[in-house]
Amino acid sequence: MSDFLIDHGVVVALVCAGLAVLYGLLTTRALLALSPGNERMQFISGAVQKGARAYLNRQYSIIAVVGVVLFVALIFVQDFSVAVGFAIGGILSGAAGFIGMNVSVRANARVAEAARGGVPKALDVAFRGGAITGLLVVGLALLGVAGYFGILTALFDKTDKEAVDALIGLGFGGSLISVFARLGGGIFTKAADVGADLVGKVEAGIPEDDPRNPAVIADNVGDNVGDCAGMAADLFETYAVTAVAVMLLGVLTFSDQTAVAMYPLILGAVAIVASIIGTFAVKGSNVERALYQGLIVSGVIAAAAFYPVTHWIMDGVTLKAAANPGDSPSVSDLYLCSLIGIAVTALLFVITDYYTSTRFGPVKKTAAASQTGHATNIIQGLASGLQATALPALVLVLGIWGAWELAGVYGVGVAVMGQLSLTGLIVALDAFGPITDNAGGIAEMADLPEDVRNVTDPLDAVGNTTKAVTKGYAIGSAVLAAVVLFAAFRFELAAEGEDVLFGIDDPPVLMGLLIGGLMVTLFASMSMEAVGRAAGAVVEEVRRQFREKPGIMDGTEQPDYERSVALVTAAAQREMIIPSLIPIVFTVVVGLISVKALGGLLIGVIIVGFFFAVLMTAGGGAWDNAKKLIEDGAFGGKGSEAHAASVTGDTVGDPFKDTAGPAINPMIKVANIVAILIIPIIT
Amino acid sequence: MSDFLIDHGVVVALVCAGLAVLYGLLTTRALLALSPGNERMQFISGAVQKGARAYLNRQYSIIAVVGVVLFVALIFVQDFSVAVGFAIGGILSGAAGFIGMNVSVRANARVAEAARGGVPKALDVAFRGGAITGLLVVGLALLGVAGYFGILTALFDKTDKEAVDALIGLGFGGSLISVFARLGGGIFTKAADVGADLVGKVEAGIPEDDPRNPAVIADNVGDNVGDCAGMAADLFETYAVTAVAVMLLGVLTFSDQTAVAMYPLILGAVAIVASIIGTFAVKGSNVERALYQGLIVSGVIAAAAFYPVTHWIMDGVTLKAAANPGDSPSVSDLYLCSLIGIAVTALLFVITDYYTSTRFGPVKKTAAASQTGHATNIIQGLASGLQATALPALVLVLGIWGAWELAGVYGVGVAVMGQLSLTGLIVALDAFGPITDNAGGIAEMADLPEDVRNVTDPLDAVGNTTKAVTKGYAIGSAVLAAVVLFAAFRFELAAEGEDVLFGIDDPPVLMGLLIGGLMVTLFASMSMEAVGRAAGAVVEEVRRQFREKPGIMDGTEQPDYERSVALVTAAAQREMIIPSLIPIVFTVVVGLISVKALGGLLIGVIIVGFFFAVLMTAGGGAWDNAKKLIEDGAFGGKGSEAHAASVTGDTVGDPFKDTAGPAINPMIKVANIVAILIIPIIT
Repeated sequence: MSDFLIDHGVVVALVCAGLAVLYGLLTTRALLALSPGNERMQFISGAVQKGARAYLNRQYSIIAVVGVVLFVALIFVQDFSVAVGFAIGGILSGAAGFIGMNVSVRANARVAEAARGGVPKALDVAFRGGAITGLLVVGLALLGVAGYFGILTALFDKTDKEAVDALIGLGFGGSLISVFARLGGGIFTKAADVGADLVGKVEAGIPEDDPRNPAVIADNVGDNVGDCAGMAADLFETYAVTAVAVMLLGVLTFSDQTAVAMYPLILGAVAIVASIIGTFAVKGSNVERALYQGLIVSGVIAAAAFYPVTHWIMDGVTLKAAANPGDSPSVSDLYLCSLIGIAVTALLFVITDYYTSTRFGPVKKTAAASQTGHATNIIQGLASGLQATALPALVLVLGIWGAWELAGVYGVGVAVMGQLSLTGLIVALDAFGPITDNAGGIAEMADLPEDVRNVTDPLDAVGNTTKAVTKGYAIGSAVLAAVVLFAAFRFELAAEGEDVLFGIDDPPVLMGLLIGGLMVTLFASMSMEAVGRAAGAVVEEVRRQFREKPGIMDGTEQPDYERSVALVTAAAQREMIIPSLIPIVFTVVVGLISVKALGGLLIGVIIVGFFFAVLMTAGGGAWDNAKKLIEDGAFGGKGSEAHAASVTGDTVGDPFKDTAGPAINPMIKVANIVAILIIPIIT
Repeated sequence: MSDFLIDHGVVVALVCAGLAVLYGLLTTRALLALSPGNERMQFISGAVQKGARAYLNRQYSIIAVVGVVLFVALIFVQDFSVAVGFAIGGILSGAAGFIGMNVSVRANARVAEAARGGVPKALDVAFRGGAITGLLVVGLALLGVAGYFGILTALFDKTDKEAVDALIGLGFGGSLISVFARLGGGIFTKAADVGADLVGKVEAGIPEDDPRNPAVIADNVGDNVGDCAGMAADLFETYAVTAVAVMLLGVLTFSDQTAVAMYPLILGAVAIVASIIGTFAVKGSNVERALYQGLIVSGVIAAAAFYPVTHWIMDGVTLKAAANPGDSPSVSDLYLCSLIGIAVTALLFVITDYYTSTRFGPVKKTAAASQTGHATNIIQGLASGLQATALPALVLVLGIWGAWELAGVYGVGVAVMGQLSLTGLIVALDAFGPITDNAGGIAEMADLPEDVRNVTDPLDAVGNTTKAVTKGYAIGSAVLAAVVLFAAFRFELAAEGEDVLFGIDDPPVLMGLLIGGLMVTLFASMSMEAVGRAAGAVVEEVRRQFREKPGIMDGTEQPDYERSVALVTAAAQREMIIPSLIPIVFTVVVGLISVKALGGLLIGVIIVGFFFAVLMTAGGGAWDNAKKLIEDGAFGGKGSEAHAASVTGDTVGDPFKDTAGPAINPMIKVANIVAILIIPIIT
């Protein structure tokens, strides 16, 4: 088995990746065969589909322009195979988001229709809709990494090391998409949401999801571009980048080149099978439990399967620099690292759940603080968000410590691969959110009976929690992945003959740390202001439509949904460019000035980025659910002063948790991968 | 001159320090000779005085207990002379705060009385009241450092290095006071402020500073304990700690022990003379210009005087490790470093002014965002605060770079000394704030004529800006001081034979960076929640008094001011203990586990602390002034929806800018100085 896996690892990985894609295709077919509901539902869902497609087309056109520039730059800075890798990464990441989102916007009406038959049926449709995106992400990522590696080594006779170098380009391709998708999607979704609410709820006095609101379709499109396409691109990137970085660390530090190159691919392959099995465990009428059941099943299967795989591939591998074989990590060391990764994921899940779920203290405190006004709600939410960073930081500290003690920085890489074994299901949980959210909207707009809403509402509430929790996972894995990337950066520098010491108190390093930090705050500030500007544009457009088409309010005129969508799309695209360039431009400029400062910058982005990302996502989640708690009747319920205060908190939380916070993840990774790619021009 | 200054440097420093103390005493006498106004004004001012004294007595009693424990611990961990230094530092820092505050709470009524004679007269009294605290801070700090150094070397025959080691204890004594004073004062001031407003303005519908509000005196006391005693302790610490750290770096790296030990003392001595001259430049009827005039005069004089001083003392000094004398920094190198310090201060001033003054874009944008509601005001304020971190970070980056290029880490130390040459006037500007604030309150409560308020109001408005701007200075100098302390930490480690490399990607260092970051967020979160809890207690007390003494509202019964003060005092003291221990306990525990992790922790605290401190102080300042802008008539003026939204922002900003944000400064320095002190037990 050992030799077979090492010799044919690429084929095994490709087969498993193919299984994931096949799962996606078959599930899509099954899903599309379901009834999309009545004409009204189909009309609404169709409008969302059209809007989503228009958004993605425009977004990808812009990315394509930036991509071509970078493609050419990569040919000069690196070589042709890196540039081709870059194109492959970008295309596959884009494809995962594109297909996934197109499925999601078709699943929404079908979930609403299925909700007529009760919770288990609706849950089944909604979850499978999300699982398509989830498995496409991991399937296409593994397909790209393993496939391109196989092509380069088998057809072009590249060495393992050369092939892995070209794969870094592939990771960067994914990165590029992810930072644009996260940021563009984040701006779109919150601008539409805030804009629609401000005019609709506040000025015109019509409820959420009212079809008379010209921005209502844009709002529904936004849910998908943010949480479905954005998250998919983010985790595609983490997945691809980590796999590549671990391969790179492996070939740089171990003597057994092919074995260590295959190891992360096979871990990924096994995890895909575990994820597919896990999807079948999602059933029942307790939505939260059903979803977590799927996660636990696939986690346990992956954990069990990692041992034999590690044994077969890594038994007896030796470090290049090891004085005797005993210094090299043993099979059980590496296996324990992969378990650490799974444990870190589980802990991050539980902690984020604690800080963002209505069941626990932090959200209750924020809800209670709403009774004394807007300001106390905000203060308590910020305090909770700040506090929410502490335990995750400690978990990462312990995870890094454990993995490093066992197997050095390579161990951290293996831990991230362990963590990423759950990516398929995590993305599924996240994409589940907008589908159920849309389903609720469609039920509302199409005047479906009360009991349909009674099914979609609890699905939607669970979707809010899973969205928050998966963000905690995304930032945690981004930090660990970035640590691995930084190690790869250092090894590559050393391989180029530049064995730089990054002393923490060396002035250029210290300066780099500060610059890295200011990149994060500047990025967050710009993306938050972007939401404000884009939302302002939506407000004006909606007001204009109400003014020019007075018939909208009494139903005699149709609002122009498409125009609103086009407007938010244009605004989001315009606003995303400059912040997206921060991690590229700062990194290149600082790198050209000083390699040491570049090292400081990379760590500064990771450390400062982590704290702001968690503060923003956890704080945002807490405000969101504090509002829900009050709407469910606590502290005076809907319409009370406390409710008004909690709406303020929720609105503040929106750009925090859906724009700036999650966009920090790809930013961290982009900076680190750009640093690796520019090594040839800075040494 | 050269030999005289080196041989008698201590005496020169003591004479100048004595001048500062003398200035303080004479000005106090002159101030107390002024009329404290009518009986009503004296009664109110007396109540504030009583409250302030009660607060300080209680605070110092608690600090004394902690201090005794640490005193004993220092005898065991270090030696007796360090412990005595610790006691001296604590006592002098406490004395500066105590005397300064006692003067401030007597100056308030005198400013109100002087305001009957117009702006220039009121400004004169208010500024001199603040200048007493300012010059006592630098005078007593220099007195302690130079005096204790002189005693140890002349009377106890200690070597220069041994004496400087004992001075680290003195710095720590100042640190201990500062973290408690900042945090305790910050919690007190905001709990009283928010509590008084919530019941007074919102529930009872009485205006601010209404004598019927039982918490009104506590509110006025709070202004003094926060901005006068708190800032004084903070900058006493920065001053003492930096002088000691620069002396330490000097004796560790240069051959000419006595000269380098004298250099920072003489720089400080010269700056005191410059500051005293600067105070006389503060006059005129344009308040802001008058104050800045004083600052510029003393800055220019200090800058001019630094050159001959540097020439006399440092000409020809050589580095211990220098291969040839040319490698050692020249006089002009060191002089340029001191100018860099002054330039950094000027730039931080201008930048903070830009982000927090009503004249510029950021505050206007926040005010404009209030028109669309509470949430948009908060989002814009946070975005501005985040953005406000970028340029100061860049200024520090350039400052560190320039000083390091010129004279290594010692150059950074000289730059901080240059920066600190303005401390006396900066503290004066900050202490000016609560005096004018109180004066306005007294004018209101004592029903003084309209034209008195017309004088105190603009003074108060300028006080708000100076408070914000001096906070930017405090955090900037804290960061640079901490960088110098970190260098001292490393040199001391090396002197103990532990030449540790703090590689930024070494796992313990990385873990330390994360732990340092989480210390900041945890500290900020706890102090913000503490304000909430303490404010809640105030609300209940005020409600109780209104309920049990119904005559308060129609003036037939006196509210019990003392009880409110006692209650906030007790709450603030209770709440300050645990957060204050974070920088001590985390640092010791991590240090005992791993020296490398400790290094990471120290830098993590600096980097993450910097961004949060600036975000919080600049954001808070922007919200505060956005409210002022609206109250002055912009965007609908007082009573509009925009005004309500801006009040929310201001309230959120309160614990940001007056509690959590400024308390991060001492926290950064405490962690770094504790690390130096525990070296004997961790190596």
